[in-house]
Amino acid sequence: MNLLKETLEEIKKGDSKAKKLTRDKWDNLVKPIGSLGSLEEISIKMSGMTGKTINKINKKAIVVMSADNGVLEEGVSAPPQVFTRVLAESTAKGITGVAVLSKLTNTDVYTVDIGMNGKVNHPDIIDKKIKNGTNNFTKGPSMTYEDAIKSIEVGIELGDKLYQKGYDILGVGELGIGNTSTSAAVLSVLADLDVDTTSGKGAGLTEEQYLNKKAIILKGIEVNRPSKEDPIDVIAKVGGFDIGGMCGLYLSAGKNKKPIVIDGFISSVAALCAVKLSENVIDYIIPSHLSNEPGAKYVLEELKLKPMLNLGMRLGEGSGCPLAFQILDAATYTLENMGTFEQASLNSSVLIDMREE
Amino acid sequence: MNLLKETLEEIKKGDSKAKKLTRDKWDNLVKPIGSLGSLEEISIKMSGMTGKTINKINKKAIVVMSADNGVLEEGVSAPPQVFTRVLAESTAKGITGVAVLSKLTNTDVYTVDIGMNGKVNHPDIIDKKIKNGTNNFTKGPSMTYEDAIKSIEVGIELGDKLYQKGYDILGVGELGIGNTSTSAAVLSVLADLDVDTTSGKGAGLTEEQYLNKKAIILKGIEVNRPSKEDPIDVIAKVGGFDIGGMCGLYLSAGKNKKPIVIDGFISSVAALCAVKLSENVIDYIIPSHLSNEPGAKYVLEELKLKPMLNLGMRLGEGSGCPLAFQILDAATYTLENMGTFEQASLNSSVLIDMREE
Repeated sequence: MNLLKETLEEIKKGDSKAKKLTRDKWDNLVKPIGSLGSLEEISIKMSGMTGKTINKINKKAIVVMSADNGVLEEGVSAPPQVFTRVLAESTAKGITGVAVLSKLTNTDVYTVDIGMNGKVNHPDIIDKKIKNGTNNFTKGPSMTYEDAIKSIEVGIELGDKLYQKGYDILGVGELGIGNTSTSAAVLSVLADLDVDTTSGKGAGLTEEQYLNKKAIILKGIEVNRPSKEDPIDVIAKVGGFDIGGMCGLYLSAGKNKKPIVIDGFISSVAALCAVKLSENVIDYIIPSHLSNEPGAKYVLEELKLKPMLNLGMRLGEGSGCPLAFQILDAATYTLENMGTFEQASLNSSVLIDMREE
Repeated sequence: MNLLKETLEEIKKGDSKAKKLTRDKWDNLVKPIGSLGSLEEISIKMSGMTGKTINKINKKAIVVMSADNGVLEEGVSAPPQVFTRVLAESTAKGITGVAVLSKLTNTDVYTVDIGMNGKVNHPDIIDKKIKNGTNNFTKGPSMTYEDAIKSIEVGIELGDKLYQKGYDILGVGELGIGNTSTSAAVLSVLADLDVDTTSGKGAGLTEEQYLNKKAIILKGIEVNRPSKEDPIDVIAKVGGFDIGGMCGLYLSAGKNKKPIVIDGFISSVAALCAVKLSENVIDYIIPSHLSNEPGAKYVLEELKLKPMLNLGMRLGEGSGCPLAFQILDAATYTLENMGTFEQASLNSSVLIDMREE
């Protein structure tokens, strides 16, 4: 609890002076004011985090929080539970979507067992197992309040270690069959949204299975009655270890004044948990894409974040983060290397100023 | 006219067998069917173009068609006309948005004078000048019908040369102060859309100037009465040399069975002209981002293309293309390097199949 408490106290708002300087630099470049849209906004936001105008993201990593969900026994998912482990192992072997996209973009991947069911079969998977999966939330809380805190602290600790190791940015990923159900439950409680709105068909449910999934999520909320005001209680009662771990990663980014990127629906819900614990942390969180999972747009609205990519992806794993890293690279590179109005006017017959609008 | 005619005859639909093979390959990879969304769709579309499953885009270029517009004398733009030339020269010097983003993504930039006003001051700008800008379309056609064909053929010829030189993909860009007005006029005619819908404030008009711009565009359409059925007539009467040149680039892509990427509003309108000349060419055109220019979403709807990026950009120049190239790289790299279900099952206790949904 001390680590979480200290972390929350240390998260400050972004540096508005640094942001202003970066905006001024953009406004001096040879283009209409604001015409590079999100490329400008995101580099300005990054300046708020680090206090610097130019922020290179040379050293990048994605953390894949992997855990199992007891609610799976209610038939809420198409793939079986063993898939969590198979995909975690496949990620460590470098053959999943997130692993391949990370390799392309020169990004390291850390796969974390924060609560998978059973023994994991790969030496590179970081063992932070809290338990062999959560409990079935239709029969009581997913986990204890203490374990929810522990899961968040696993994320903080790992984030701290990575940022201190020199990573300029982290991406947040997850593996956990059944975690669109836990995420929908958490989002419904935190944002007062109907289960019909927050839940989708995940990795391929039939219409009938989908109706069952919604009933199960609703039951989980009704049985446990999580307190909307306390995100830790919500994670404990209807969430999962992966959501707690990701929540901790975001908090660590805020504490370390470094950027962190959301992937899809599950990681967005974890970001919402983090923001409910510390509103300042939003200044360190960067969205990537709009997932095809139906709840995704509602949680991004709740976070007031606009996704940069619209690719209809719904893979999870952190697979949207490498694509966002490419855009962030483009933003910082452009800010650093574009010419000014003054440079453009050289050798021209007239002195020009497109800024006069 | 022969080049245009022959080109139109040579543009065939994409290869549906090749597309099917690529879809099968995706469906074998360790992920739920379709869960990589547009990454899958776009690589499938590229297979339709080239007939190959894996399409690397190692050699990339953006062509920046640069021209001036006579209608500028009606006060439809905030920046003055000389800006077209200054920005073309600055692009050749490597300091504009498109130049910098291209450098980052290892993309060559070809800046083309297809009708700028006055002598251009840079040896690297390709001289394909048809005239010193178009005529003011409120007083008669922008250009003759013959010059419209000539502008399209400049694009075809250059596209052919570049694809034959070994470029795997081209991006389409433009420079031309006043070309949101010509584009809005062309789009209004071709798609039967109101001028209020197709025109925006460009690079910074006041509300009053914006009302004037709309009146001017409407006047151009009423004075010239372009024939909706003949895109060449529309380009000639209310378009510009840049639009014609870009239209030719798209047609060249179709002829050469190679991909070509749209940037923002202006280049989308040119794509619509190309599609009106040859419906098959749509199989070779890839969208990039949704421009903040209000008409952009209508022309993309007209083309039935979904933008991959949503960055609120409105710079033009071709600046969205390098960002799209990064995504295409990711798509082809993932298709080539992700593991199959079979590979994922190795060392696992169970044989799995996530495809059974």
